[in-house]
Amino acid sequence: MIITLKKRTPQSEVDRLIESFERQGLRVHFSEGENFNVIGLVGDATRLSERDILANEWVANVQRVGAPYKLANRMFHPEDTIVDVAGIRIGGHEKIAMIAGPCAVEGLDEIVEAAKEVKEAGAGLLRGGAYKPRTSPYSFQGLGYEGIKDMVKAREITGLPIVSELMSADKIDEFAENVDLVQIGARNMQNFDLLKEVGRLNKPVLLKRGMSATIEEWIMAAEYIMASGNPNVIFCERGIRTFEKYTRNTLDLSVVPILKERTHLPVIIDPSHATGDWKYIEPVSLAAIAAGADGLIIEVHPHPECALSDGAQSLKPAKYAELVKKARMVARAVGRDL
Amino acid sequence: MIITLKKRTPQSEVDRLIESFERQGLRVHFSEGENFNVIGLVGDATRLSERDILANEWVANVQRVGAPYKLANRMFHPEDTIVDVAGIRIGGHEKIAMIAGPCAVEGLDEIVEAAKEVKEAGAGLLRGGAYKPRTSPYSFQGLGYEGIKDMVKAREITGLPIVSELMSADKIDEFAENVDLVQIGARNMQNFDLLKEVGRLNKPVLLKRGMSATIEEWIMAAEYIMASGNPNVIFCERGIRTFEKYTRNTLDLSVVPILKERTHLPVIIDPSHATGDWKYIEPVSLAAIAAGADGLIIEVHPHPECALSDGAQSLKPAKYAELVKKARMVARAVGRDL
Amino acid sequence: MIITLKKRTPQSEVDRLIESFERQGLRVHFSEGENFNVIGLVGDATRLSERDILANEWVANVQRVGAPYKLANRMFHPEDTIVDVAGIRIGGHEKIAMIAGPCAVEGLDEIVEAAKEVKEAGAGLLRGGAYKPRTSPYSFQGLGYEGIKDMVKAREITGLPIVSELMSADKIDEFAENVDLVQIGARNMQNFDLLKEVGRLNKPVLLKRGMSATIEEWIMAAEYIMASGNPNVIFCERGIRTFEKYTRNTLDLSVVPILKERTHLPVIIDPSHATGDWKYIEPVSLAAIAAGADGLIIEVHPHPECALSDGAQSLKPAKYAELVKKARMVARAVGRDL
Amino acid sequence: MIITLKKRTPQSEVDRLIESFERQGLRVHFSEGENFNVIGLVGDATRLSERDILANEWVANVQRVGAPYKLANRMFHPEDTIVDVAGIRIGGHEKIAMIAGPCAVEGLDEIVEAAKEVKEAGAGLLRGGAYKPRTSPYSFQGLGYEGIKDMVKAREITGLPIVSELMSADKIDEFAENVDLVQIGARNMQNFDLLKEVGRLNKPVLLKRGMSATIEEWIMAAEYIMASGNPNVIFCERGIRTFEKYTRNTLDLSVVPILKERTHLPVIIDPSHATGDWKYIEPVSLAAIAAGADGLIIEVHPHPECALSDGAQSLKPAKYAELVKKARMVARAVGRDL
Repeated sequence: MIITLKKRTPQSEVDRLIESFERQGLRVHFSEGENFNVIGLVGDATRLSERDILANEWVANVQRVGAPYKLANRMFHPEDTIVDVAGIRIGGHEKIAMIAGPCAVEGLDEIVEAAKEVKEAGAGLLRGGAYKPRTSPYSFQGLGYEGIKDMVKAREITGLPIVSELMSADKIDEFAENVDLVQIGARNMQNFDLLKEVGRLNKPVLLKRGMSATIEEWIMAAEYIMASGNPNVIFCERGIRTFEKYTRNTLDLSVVPILKERTHLPVIIDPSHATGDWKYIEPVSLAAIAAGADGLIIEVHPHPECALSDGAQSLKPAKYAELVKKARMVARAVGRDL
Repeated sequence: MIITLKKRTPQSEVDRLIESFERQGLRVHFSEGENFNVIGLVGDATRLSERDILANEWVANVQRVGAPYKLANRMFHPEDTIVDVAGIRIGGHEKIAMIAGPCAVEGLDEIVEAAKEVKEAGAGLLRGGAYKPRTSPYSFQGLGYEGIKDMVKAREITGLPIVSELMSADKIDEFAENVDLVQIGARNMQNFDLLKEVGRLNKPVLLKRGMSATIEEWIMAAEYIMASGNPNVIFCERGIRTFEKYTRNTLDLSVVPILKERTHLPVIIDPSHATGDWKYIEPVSLAAIAAGADGLIIEVHPHPECALSDGAQSLKPAKYAELVKKARMVARAVGRDL
Repeated sequence: MIITLKKRTPQSEVDRLIESFERQGLRVHFSEGENFNVIGLVGDATRLSERDILANEWVANVQRVGAPYKLANRMFHPEDTIVDVAGIRIGGHEKIAMIAGPCAVEGLDEIVEAAKEVKEAGAGLLRGGAYKPRTSPYSFQGLGYEGIKDMVKAREITGLPIVSELMSADKIDEFAENVDLVQIGARNMQNFDLLKEVGRLNKPVLLKRGMSATIEEWIMAAEYIMASGNPNVIFCERGIRTFEKYTRNTLDLSVVPILKERTHLPVIIDPSHATGDWKYIEPVSLAAIAAGADGLIIEVHPHPECALSDGAQSLKPAKYAELVKKARMVARAVGRDL
Repeated sequence: MIITLKKRTPQSEVDRLIESFERQGLRVHFSEGENFNVIGLVGDATRLSERDILANEWVANVQRVGAPYKLANRMFHPEDTIVDVAGIRIGGHEKIAMIAGPCAVEGLDEIVEAAKEVKEAGAGLLRGGAYKPRTSPYSFQGLGYEGIKDMVKAREITGLPIVSELMSADKIDEFAENVDLVQIGARNMQNFDLLKEVGRLNKPVLLKRGMSATIEEWIMAAEYIMASGNPNVIFCERGIRTFEKYTRNTLDLSVVPILKERTHLPVIIDPSHATGDWKYIEPVSLAAIAAGADGLIIEVHPHPECALSDGAQSLKPAKYAELVKKARMVARAVGRDL
C-alpha cells in the first residue's frame, strides 16, 4: 500500500503513522517528494482499509498495490478451481455448463414439462425460482417451499441437478437439504449476513454480480463466502446497470478474462437478465462462450407469454435447442466442449 | 397502461389479450394506427408488470401511465406524513431533524462522548452502527448487540433517540426493543424479506436508497414496507453510483422535490456517504436544506483519524456545531427551522 | 406517438392540442381513461420531439411508438447495407473486416513497419491517428497532416486501405483526398456540425459510439450523416462509461444484435478502447465475432512500451496474428469468414 | 507519480525505466516491497500519461500523486479568479450571476420580450441559443446568425450581456464580435480543436460539463482553453448521465466545493438541463446557491408550451421572478448576495 502525505505534515504525525503501521506488522519505506512525501507499506495489507487511512487529514492519497482478497486470489492459488455440482464439474477445461429453466416455478406440471424440454434441448442443470425478488409487492412472489419441492420432483424425473435462489437465511436448511447449487441473487450480493451463512454450507454457491457492483466488490463477496469456509463459489455475470435503455442491463463480458486472471473460480453468464429480451439471447450467449465463460444460465419457458415472471426474456425450448447446437460449435472453435 | 401491438398481430391474438385484461377487471380501449395498434387499459393496473406483458411476441411496447405504487402515492394521500421518532416529529413543516454520531459504535465511552458532543453541537438524534456492512470480511464488522446496548446507555444519558442499521431479520426483536429509528441500508434496499419484516414492526424505518436504485424502485421498496403494515417510512438519499471518482458517490438532491411531489413521506439526506469526504459535507448539507430536505444524517466522530470505520467522511464535533449554525440560517431562509 | 393528458385538462386545451397535431398532418385518436386521457397520433411523427410536447403542463407523459429515425431504419430498408471501403466490402454476409495499426502515427518508418506487420498478421485495413483527441493539452497531439501523408505512403507500400480520425471540419478536404474510411471519434459523436460535413462527403464513415450515448442517440447520429446525403455509415462500438474501474470502458456487445435488428448498417467492434488492456483483447474480440460483428478495429504496435499514445492497450504483431487465427475459427463456427 | 513494478521485473528493465524518467528531468526514488517494487517520481509529471507508462508489461500500476493540470490548479494560484463578462463580475465573493432566457432564439420579438421579462424578474445576463445541438436532424436547428443578431438587438434594448453556444470553429469571428460569454456545450466539452480556438479568443468562456465527463476531465478541458491563452473560464455543471429516469440528468452539486478546492475558477449551475423539468428548478436552484455556486443559468420562456425547443424545462417569467427572490434570501443566508 502506498500512502501519500501532504508536504507540510508535521514530523510528529509522520512518526505516529509509521509507528502505527509497524505495530500492525508491516514494514515501512518513507521517501520525500517535491510536493508530497510517500509511505510504502510492505507485508499483508488486506486488513487495512484505504478509506480509514484517508481519515487522517495529512493523508492526500492511498493506493493499494496488491489485491484486497486472498482466498479468491489466483496469485496464491494458481490452478483453476473446479466446482462439483451433484456430479457436474464446472470450471477449468471442463465442459461448458448449460443451466436452463423458467424464471419462476409455477407448479409441478409446468416445472416437470420445462425440465424435460430443457434436458431434451441439451441443458445439464435445471434452474427455477421458488422465492422471487420482485420490485413490486403486488407481483407474484414465488411458490416458496412448494416450489422447491416441485423442483426436487423435476430432478427425480429428469436427473438434472437443480439451481434456485436463496433470499433469506431462515430458509438455509431447506436449501441445504434440497438444492444442488444455491444462487445468491444480484440484490443480495452485499447481504453480508447471507454470504456468511452460505459460507457455512457444504453446497456450491452461484454468486450473481450486484447491479452496480465493481468487479472488486464482487470478488470480495466471494471472499466473504470463502472466508466462512465454503470454497465452492461460481461467479455469475448478469449485466450491470447503465444509462442504456434498449436493454434491461448492460452485459459486461470483459469480466470473463478479468476474473480468470485474478481469481481461480469459474465464471458463468446469464444472458437472460443481461439483455432482458429473448431476441438477443442467442448472439450474446455465443459471445459469452467465445470469451471463455464456463457456463450459461438461460431462462427457458414452454409458454413465455403465459409466464408469471420475466416471460419477455424467456426462450422457447425449440429456440434453446438451436442455441445449444450453435453454442457447441463456438465452444469447439475455442477449444472447449459442451 | 398503454400497450402497443405490432401491426400484423392476428385478430385472434388481439381478442385473447383483450379478454385476458378484461378478466382482470380492466376496461380496454382499442385503436388502430398506421404502423401499430394500441390497447389502452382503464382501471387499477398496479398488479400488472410491464415486462410480463412484453413477453407476448406481438407486443412492441408497454407504457405505464399511472404510478405502480399506491400506499406511498401522494395522489391518494395528499397531506404530508409526519413520522414520530420517540417524540421527534419528522416531515411536513416540522423542524429539520439533525441526526449525528459515529459511523460505528466502538465502545461505551466513545459513544457516550460522541452523544454528548453531538447533542451539545445541536443534534436531535444519535446515529451509530452496531452491525456494519463492510466490503471486506477482514474489516471491523461492528460490536453487534454490545453496540446496541452501548447506544441505549448513550440515550439514557443524553436523551437522544437512537438510529441504527438492521442488517438481518434474526435481529429484529433486538431492534424492536431498543432502537428508535430502524435503518435499512443501501445494500439491503431490495432485500425484500427484510423489508417485509420491518413492515410488521411498530417502529419507524429509515430507508436508504440503493446504490443504483431508481427513484421508482426506491418508492416500491417503501411500498413493500407499507404494504406489510408499517406506514412510518422515511426516505434517506445517500448518493448513487456513477462514473465520477472524486466523490465516493454522486449525491442526487433532485430526489427531494421529486419524492415530495410523488409521495407523502419525509426525505432526509446523508451527505457523509454521498461525498465520502468531510471537507465537502458542509456545503452539501446546506444545499440539502435549501432543496427542502426534512433532515440530515451526518457522521460525527470525536477523533476521526482513530475511527474504526469511515473516518475519512466524519466531521469533528466543533465543525459539526458550525454546520448546525449555518444550516439553521439556510433553513430559515427557506421558511423552515431546526 | 401516445400522449397522456392529465384528467382535469380543460376541453379547450385538448381541442387546441388535437388541432395542432392535425395541422402537422397527423391523424388523432382520443380516448378517455379513469385517471388519464390519451391522444394517439397516426402518421410520421419523426419531426415531433417528446420533450417539446411535454412542455405543455397538461401533458403527463409522451411515448414514441415508432422509431425517431427513418433512413437508418431497417423497417424501411430491410436488406443489409454493405459498405465498400476502397474495394473491401463490410457488412451483410461479407468477410469480417480486420482493421489494425497503431493508435497514433509516430513517423513514416514506424507506420510502414506497422502496416507490413499487421498485413502479414492478417489485417485487411490499416488504422492510425494523425489528429489525436487527448485529455491533456500537454500530451502528444498527433503529427497532423504529416501523419496523414505517412499513412498514404504506408498504403502505397502495402495496399491496405487506411482509416483515420477526423476531428475538425477544416481538415475535411485533406481527408476526402487521402483517407479511405473517415472515423468520427467517440467525443465527436454529437458534434452535429461535423456530422453534417461528413454527410456531404463521398467517403464511408466509421461512427464511434459516444462514451455515454444511448443506442438511440447513436443511430440518430448516423441519421444526421445519412440525412446529409452519405448512406455509407459503419457503427463502431468502443465501450461505454460505467462505474467499473478494472476496465477503461465497459464493452456493450449487445449492440450488435440490436443495431442489426433496428438498422441495416454494418457494426464493428473496437476491443482496444473498450477494455484498455491488451491482455483482454483476444477473448473480447472472439466474443464480438460470435455476437455477429462485421469487423474488428484493434490497436497493434510493434513496440507498445514505446508508443506515444495508448501503448497499454496495444497488441504486439505476433499476438495479433494469433488472434486472427482464432478469430477465423470462431467466424466459421458462426457461418462467417475472415 | 508512483509506479509499481511487478516483483520479477528484470534489473535491465528497471534501469531502462529509471533512466528514461531521469532523461525527462524527473528525480527517481526506488524502493523494494514484498510483492512489488516501487518507483516514485519527483518533479513536474504533468507531461506524463498514466496509460502510456502502463504500456510497459512490467508495470503493475501507476498512480498520479499531484494533479495533471497546472493553470487551473489552485495550488499554484491560490486567489479566486473573477471573470468579467461585459462589466458583470462572476466568482469570488461577487454577487451571484443570474443568467436567464429561452433555450433557443425563435425570432426578434420573442427574444426581446424574453429579455425584458427576465431583466424585470431579476436576471443580469441573457441566454439564448442560435445554433442548437439537437439529437434529431429533423428537429429545429436554431436560427443561426439571424439568432445572434436578434440577441444583439435584445442586448441593445435591455443592456443585458448575452450568452450563446458556439458549436463550430467556423463561427468564431461571429461570436468574438457579438457574444459576451461564449458557451461550449456539453457535447463539445472534449472537442479539443474547438477548445483551442476559444483559447485564442479574448472573450470569457462558459464551459459546460460533458454528459459523462469526470471532474478531472472537465478541469483538463479548462486547462486546454487556458493553455491556449484564455484564462477566463467559468465552469457550468448541467447534470451527468446516470441510470435514473425521473430526471433528464443527475445534477451533481458536489462539484461546487470540489472545483473551488482544486481550481480558482468560478462555477455556475444549470438546473434546467440537469432536471429537465420546470417543476424541480426552484428547489434545485436554491440548493446550488447554498452549496456555494457563483451563478445560475436558467431557461425562461414567456410561453413554454409554444417553445421550439426544451419547453418542458422552461420556467415562465413570473415563476422565475419568485425564484430570484427566494434565491436572494438563501444567498444572504450563506454570506453572498445577488
